[in-house]
Amino acid sequence: MNVRLYNARILTMEKDKPVFSGEVWVKNEKIVCVLEEKQLEKGWEKDFPEIRWDLELDCKENLLMPGFKNAHTHSAMTFLRSYADDVPLQQWLNEKVFPMEAKLTGEDIYHLTRLAILEYLTSGITAIFEMYLTPDTIARACIDMGMRCVLTSGMNNFSSSIEQQEEEYNKWNGAHPLISYQLGFHAEYTTSKELLYKLAQLSHKYHAPVYTHLAETRREVEECLERYGRTPAVFLENMGLFAYGGGGFHCVHMTEDDMDVFRRHRLCVITNPASNMKLASGIAPVAEFLRKKIPVAIGTDGPASNNCLDMFREMFLVTGLSKLKEEDAASIDARQVLHMATVQGAKAMRLPKSDVLAKGKNADIIMLDLHQPNMQPIHNIPKNIVYSGSKSNVRMTMIGGQILYYNGEFNVGDSPERIYGICSQIVRRLTDSAGV
Amino acid sequence: MNVRLYNARILTMEKDKPVFSGEVWVKNEKIVCVLEEKQLEKGWEKDFPEIRWDLELDCKENLLMPGFKNAHTHSAMTFLRSYADDVPLQQWLNEKVFPMEAKLTGEDIYHLTRLAILEYLTSGITAIFEMYLTPDTIARACIDMGMRCVLTSGMNNFSSSIEQQEEEYNKWNGAHPLISYQLGFHAEYTTSKELLYKLAQLSHKYHAPVYTHLAETRREVEECLERYGRTPAVFLENMGLFAYGGGGFHCVHMTEDDMDVFRRHRLCVITNPASNMKLASGIAPVAEFLRKKIPVAIGTDGPASNNCLDMFREMFLVTGLSKLKEEDAASIDARQVLHMATVQGAKAMRLPKSDVLAKGKNADIIMLDLHQPNMQPIHNIPKNIVYSGSKSNVRMTMIGGQILYYNGEFNVGDSPERIYGICSQIVRRLTDSAGV
Repeated sequence: MNVRLYNARILTMEKDKPVFSGEVWVKNEKIVCVLEEKQLEKGWEKDFPEIRWDLELDCKENLLMPGFKNAHTHSAMTFLRSYADDVPLQQWLNEKVFPMEAKLTGEDIYHLTRLAILEYLTSGITAIFEMYLTPDTIARACIDMGMRCVLTSGMNNFSSSIEQQEEEYNKWNGAHPLISYQLGFHAEYTTSKELLYKLAQLSHKYHAPVYTHLAETRREVEECLERYGRTPAVFLENMGLFAYGGGGFHCVHMTEDDMDVFRRHRLCVITNPASNMKLASGIAPVAEFLRKKIPVAIGTDGPASNNCLDMFREMFLVTGLSKLKEEDAASIDARQVLHMATVQGAKAMRLPKSDVLAKGKNADIIMLDLHQPNMQPIHNIPKNIVYSGSKSNVRMTMIGGQILYYNGEFNVGDSPERIYGICSQIVRRLTDSAGV
Repeated sequence: MNVRLYNARILTMEKDKPVFSGEVWVKNEKIVCVLEEKQLEKGWEKDFPEIRWDLELDCKENLLMPGFKNAHTHSAMTFLRSYADDVPLQQWLNEKVFPMEAKLTGEDIYHLTRLAILEYLTSGITAIFEMYLTPDTIARACIDMGMRCVLTSGMNNFSSSIEQQEEEYNKWNGAHPLISYQLGFHAEYTTSKELLYKLAQLSHKYHAPVYTHLAETRREVEECLERYGRTPAVFLENMGLFAYGGGGFHCVHMTEDDMDVFRRHRLCVITNPASNMKLASGIAPVAEFLRKKIPVAIGTDGPASNNCLDMFREMFLVTGLSKLKEEDAASIDARQVLHMATVQGAKAMRLPKSDVLAKGKNADIIMLDLHQPNMQPIHNIPKNIVYSGSKSNVRMTMIGGQILYYNGEFNVGDSPERIYGICSQIVRRLTDSAGV
């Protein structure tokens, strides 16, 4: 489908490029050009090979920008939303999460992921970095609905295996334009040294980066120090897991040595501020990461620990929590936050074609409504988005040239009410059988 | 207008009352009854004196609950949104806020307040506790648009006076059902001892509570200690300002003695978590207030320091920041947060008729859309609202029986685009004349 998005304000997220007025042209799944108004005035567009438009959309001076990259989530945990809040972390895991997870089927995960995808679309999220059970059914949910997804393995001593991970890696890289796969494991504290050693071998075999939960809680770090005499990042580096890069989810409790590991291997931090608040894990030292030139992307984490999948909330928290932690109202400005939510997200997820709005990039585009009171007056659009923006401003979410969400309506091959209904049935079955 | 709201889930916010299915009947500006489904089955409604409905609204099993009380704001500061972020507090005030405020007229404040009111409506806010220049034009903006407003004075050494405040107090209490007025002053650090003494006399004359900014920053507390040898709360108590109750906005840096002052005089804390984050002021000890039985309400603060006027963000932050501060994921549960945002807000603002949904109360009612992905599945509605809710879930905002916002459309006597246009003109004039 060829779509002309005209009469727009445009924030391409290319370095230092300000917001301008113009058009974005989409041909099939790609952006074929981003035109400034002054180019249009010069008749520049006439030089362009003719395109027959399937749709010409008047953006009414609303904002087009790259979609947000949700660089860490466990989508199917929608089944636990509001089920187990306001309880301490260990009790939450042992009494609530694990008993219900044990009953989940791949088909359940398919539907529960679809519920999460609906929510991503309402928040302008155009790609997710997904770690959960049954990657095959997650991939199917994303393909069926049109969501771009980078899968990673949550392998640990109790779930998945090196063989399964290698099979998935080969199966899902190249199988579908929306899906890719990165090596990963759940966390140091759930994964044996033997398994980690084999994963390092796999990483070396494919020259592939590795991703994992890292330094999320103080307890995790202390237990790793007891077990191995090293912090998780240093221990994992020594195991050879970061030879080809990768990244850590959370990274709340990081030492200077840990940050050196990240710099040395060009690892990405994926910060999850709402989850770290809600589970009382702490505030990640994001400003310190930036001073050390460690790239930072942003994730919502799963809906059981957040509980919503909303990049606007995360963006405000990235800067707000940093301002608190640094006791500095100038810490991490809005433009830096937007960069994390788009360009750095794409970098962390190895999606170089989905970072900015430019010729040849994937048409992963959102339209933000500036004609709402929270976006007025228009002094500074990046600040409006980060400090005042809300999912209610998301007017359109396009992934790979497909408009999946527009004016509150979904175009995902199934009705929201049907997905809600199926998920409610799943939840009833799980709670009944878990005896809770 | 008589409105029947049927086929609803209802959260009245009465103590310990769970969500139930039923109807809310509104006659003119009041709720005439809240009916449970089982009462309807018994034909109970037939005993009710007949009402001719002007509107019967199928709520489609969405949630009706009391509107949120925004218990601290400076609405007209919309003109500063995204104008002066990411700079240190003193620089922000001296270089940005004060020069532009000096140019504001009462008429400017009228329009800039109207812009904020549009935003309140999108966030389900049905009453505001307003401290800003020119209360008369603020009141007019609220009356013209239908917003419930409690005015308080921001009197200080440079603005307003005891005489003006007494005149406003008498003028606006009883003048209009939507408007009331409480005594107040800006803050200890901007108000002379002489002026405070006179305000205490006024409070004693009318047996009236007094409200002020209090213990917002560490510096404020330290300077008061230097000046008077006492913390602000203790100093103000000694001045006789709290003999008839009242409350403090912010209350971030509070000593045990300060909390004793609050208990002794039954003062309310009005917490402003997003503002305290964004300006790097700190995290208020809200869980400690609750342990000491100090009532806590919630405010957005003004749009210059937040920057949005969104009670969903504030509610999540109240519990999230407390979980961080207390290092306890169980700190302040969702139901407590909702209580602060509704019942305690009404208490702090002295609006006893606007606290819960019950017979005889003001029809200040919101409808939250549960048919959106962030509200699914429905395990626990209060938790869904606090942890996952968003202004995008606000389907209706009714104040005093008038539906001011429904399905994204405003019914406030003027068009949003016209208000945006006027406010943009004001902002251009202010920035030009301020030479910035």
